[in-house]
Amino acid sequence: MKVVIVRDRALVVEEIPTPTPGSGQVLVKVRSCGICGSDLHLFKHGPELVAQAKAAGLPHEAIDHDLVMGHEFVAEIVEFGPGCQQTLSIGDRVCSMPFLQQGDHIAPIGATKTTTGAYAEYMLLTEAILLPVPDGMSDDAAALAEPLAIGIHAVAKAQITEADVALVIGCGPIGLAVIAALKMQGVTTIIASDYSARRRELAEQMGATQVINPATASPYQSLQNLGALKNVIFECVGIKGLIGQIVNEAPRLTRIIVAGVCMEEDNFAPMVAVSKELLLQFVTYYQQQEFAAALEALANNKINWRPWITGKVDLHGVAKAFEELKNPELHAKILIEPSQS
Amino acid sequence: MKVVIVRDRALVVEEIPTPTPGSGQVLVKVRSCGICGSDLHLFKHGPELVAQAKAAGLPHEAIDHDLVMGHEFVAEIVEFGPGCQQTLSIGDRVCSMPFLQQGDHIAPIGATKTTTGAYAEYMLLTEAILLPVPDGMSDDAAALAEPLAIGIHAVAKAQITEADVALVIGCGPIGLAVIAALKMQGVTTIIASDYSARRRELAEQMGATQVINPATASPYQSLQNLGALKNVIFECVGIKGLIGQIVNEAPRLTRIIVAGVCMEEDNFAPMVAVSKELLLQFVTYYQQQEFAAALEALANNKINWRPWITGKVDLHGVAKAFEELKNPELHAKILIEPSQS
Repeated sequence: MKVVIVRDRALVVEEIPTPTPGSGQVLVKVRSCGICGSDLHLFKHGPELVAQAKAAGLPHEAIDHDLVMGHEFVAEIVEFGPGCQQTLSIGDRVCSMPFLQQGDHIAPIGATKTTTGAYAEYMLLTEAILLPVPDGMSDDAAALAEPLAIGIHAVAKAQITEADVALVIGCGPIGLAVIAALKMQGVTTIIASDYSARRRELAEQMGATQVINPATASPYQSLQNLGALKNVIFECVGIKGLIGQIVNEAPRLTRIIVAGVCMEEDNFAPMVAVSKELLLQFVTYYQQQEFAAALEALANNKINWRPWITGKVDLHGVAKAFEELKNPELHAKILIEPSQS
Repeated sequence: MKVVIVRDRALVVEEIPTPTPGSGQVLVKVRSCGICGSDLHLFKHGPELVAQAKAAGLPHEAIDHDLVMGHEFVAEIVEFGPGCQQTLSIGDRVCSMPFLQQGDHIAPIGATKTTTGAYAEYMLLTEAILLPVPDGMSDDAAALAEPLAIGIHAVAKAQITEADVALVIGCGPIGLAVIAALKMQGVTTIIASDYSARRRELAEQMGATQVINPATASPYQSLQNLGALKNVIFECVGIKGLIGQIVNEAPRLTRIIVAGVCMEEDNFAPMVAVSKELLLQFVTYYQQQEFAAALEALANNKINWRPWITGKVDLHGVAKAFEELKNPELHAKILIEPSQS
């Protein structure tokens, strides 16, 4: 089967053997897969990420090469492995959280060498966590379940209420997912900040009630001006210095939800955080019910998801898509359709 | 009246005019006042603190000189200012949160130049927030209400449950207060870590169920070994590098309560915090009901407070006490009794 593999800091199309489903696993044919901001991060910062994980005593592996990424997928069932319940059928379309059960071990799909991701014609999934894609739901919408689940989880961890005023810093894929999730939760004031005019436009289409270009106005000042008692700021960028800036600029008692993944050591002023009793909640991934809620919201058009998708490529177009995604004026989410390759 | 004042980075005894109570204010005679870790911090780092507050756009004042500190006090009422309700009487003993109402402005006592603290024979308090000290309660116990309230507030912000396992890093006054508050809340596993043997002994006396010398064993490993699902770590030291260490070493989903006040910029690895979904809750002060709960707990000997007090001085002994408090083997809490001066 054809895959896109990370090799010597490049993305190349290659043939590898189609995997065989093990116990409780299902072989699926990938119909569509989104390119995630974390894939771009991983591709760019792979070696540093591996070094940091090692330094922190976290599990790590040399995933900076020979890796097949892709964890935002919709696929159809091709073959059941041994021990499957088979409550779904061959040909059914499915989504799932990107985790592969391998015996008594669970590994993240598209982030280890033994769990080939969806930048591929075929892949293995875990039967127990498959979610059927409702009839009538497009592949495009289904492929967004994973990134939307990220936003739903971040908003859940913020313990958001309708009394909260939200500021979303960064309107890339995570920021847009957070905006969509905030809108789903009924939050009535959603300020979104991004340097890119195109991203600000997308933010408005996804549910932002006010957009700010931080080059010309302070998003924190906009928050202060509202004088709300409960404020929550979502950090959806992940660049060095931003957490420190938010700590300095946030109103007292603000909950700061850090969904961006800064790959470097970062610094801030603890004294300022203490004096304002700030809360920093770091978030990643989602839970099964949050993933299911994302799929359901997309199936029923509870969010305006169409503007989110700005391009489609086949496997041969992935390298160019990674280049183009560096420019926020060009793209938000690009979907890969391996069957077109 | 005699006061101890910060002057040219020294603590000197000086005569200043006894203040006159304004509207809603009460003149009190100080019976006892604890020396707080934050007083030591302020004395040592005053200029940096002022500079940082300025940089962060927080209210600031040149409190690094000509300041009378002292905010952990028990006192007796001497004179009511105009407009007081006088529900208490002259001679009654009182505690209160260290905030002085000055017209429509509220200022922290012992932390601004216009709100003389309790390192003094007399001081002004706000009638509306006075709490009477019960008959039979010693001045010693009452003087501990303020630092214990800090611990009660930190534990409340942690949303602690009996299922939580707690690790307290640093057994200075704040750490000891947190330990006492955890014990009051019924937490059954309280690990306390400090380099000082004397402090570890105090921690056990105040309620720690396990003490660790981080020079010889990892407190984080002790936490990991318990394998609890809910872990909370209290940072009660406030030195550069400690937050980053806790982030690296904490188990997944740990709530980290930062009660220590690091005066410098500090750094940490956001990627590690994200991957473990850590929560950092920065805390300071307390609320009125938390202060009242602290006074009540001390009045009814709900905590073993006696070991906490390790020395008493008069105003002339304050400078020496500040010196001695640098050595954790010598002291935990020193009380100042101005009437002995």
